[in-house]
Amino acid sequence: MSNSTKDLDHLIEMMAKLPGLGPRSARRAVLHMIKKRALLMVPLADSLQHVAATARECLNCGNIGTSDVCDICTTEKRANGEICVVEDVADLWAMERSGVFKGRYHVLGGTLSALDAIGPEELRIPKLMDRVVGEQISEVILALNATIDGQTTAHYIAGELDRRGVTVTSLAQGVPIGGELDYLDDGTISAALKARKAI
Amino acid sequence: MSNSTKDLDHLIEMMAKLPGLGPRSARRAVLHMIKKRALLMVPLADSLQHVAATARECLNCGNIGTSDVCDICTTEKRANGEICVVEDVADLWAMERSGVFKGRYHVLGGTLSALDAIGPEELRIPKLMDRVVGEQISEVILALNATIDGQTTAHYIAGELDRRGVTVTSLAQGVPIGGELDYLDDGTISAALKARKAI
Ligand SMILES: [Zn+2]
Ligand SMILES: [Zn+2]
Repeated sequence: MSNSTKDLDHLIEMMAKLPGLGPRSARRAVLHMIKKRALLMVPLADSLQHVAATARECLNCGNIGTSDVCDICTTEKRANGEICVVEDVADLWAMERSGVFKGRYHVLGGTLSALDAIGPEELRIPKLMDRVVGEQISEVILALNATIDGQTTAHYIAGELDRRGVTVTSLAQGVPIGGELDYLDDGTISAALKARKAI
Repeated sequence: MSNSTKDLDHLIEMMAKLPGLGPRSARRAVLHMIKKRALLMVPLADSLQHVAATARECLNCGNIGTSDVCDICTTEKRANGEICVVEDVADLWAMERSGVFKGRYHVLGGTLSALDAIGPEELRIPKLMDRVVGEQISEVILALNATIDGQTTAHYIAGELDRRGVTVTSLAQGVPIGGELDYLDDGTISAALKARKAI
């Protein structure tokens, strides 16, 4: 195999590692990009490089941004006493797209899992407890996935916050059993947030 | 919207333009890459840049490589008097994966289409006629998709080659009606090539 074929194969292999792409769609994507070299391939390479060099986790909430503390955490207007707890950044983005939540977020980075030995310390749970005091939070909205691990995690966090006298609510109406937040449409998320109930 | 969010949104937008990816899978892919920054995102950016700078169409057959004439066209062993005609590079790659064809290729770059005003001159058909003489070709194997446009194109090329006294065959057994080559497994392609018949 020549170098040129190797380079293409290497690129296809890496593209095939992306979630949602397999070898076949990776080959299609690479051929498509070669056809749209100036308009797509070169700008995409530049953008990947730029984001790889600048993206980082917010030290406060775990959101992805380009500074130590993210835009949502530094916008004073969003300090309304509410924190919405999500499992990962994709869920935060889904909430933001719905445009209905005006407070701040806290990204756990996963769920508690006995099987995978993921306890509170492996997630951002201690940091959440710090924030509840430091940011004078009155309500924590748990927007975790309606999976077993998600609900176990919600139950644990609700218990910890209850002890600290914080109101804990959770997304309710509209989140289907076993459903993952990031798959839901914006309207469903809006409805679930508006109809949130105390745990 | 801040610059950091704009950069991420821009990257997601470009990823969503790739075939097989939509906005949702593009978001997933970007978050995945940020998590695998050193192992995936940076090498992928480098590889995209490298391939964007070096990939070009073979002047002889239309294959993608990194030199004016591709490896298959410069490998003397593959000058066995056979040319396999395909619609696009993805089909050439599919044929190569099957490993059963030992000759050279000719990538048309599409099919004849009255609707889209694509005539022989818009494809690499004149170049194919040149090659048949220049490379002393005895057999041209038409490996076009079993679509209406594919078969119209096959018929046209067969007529032109017939006049020049070249044997024309086509993939037969195993290519389903309406099926596209790049979707078939290697075994099907092997069987179709072995059972090729004169047009
Ligand atoms: Zn933040
Ligand atoms: Zn070539």
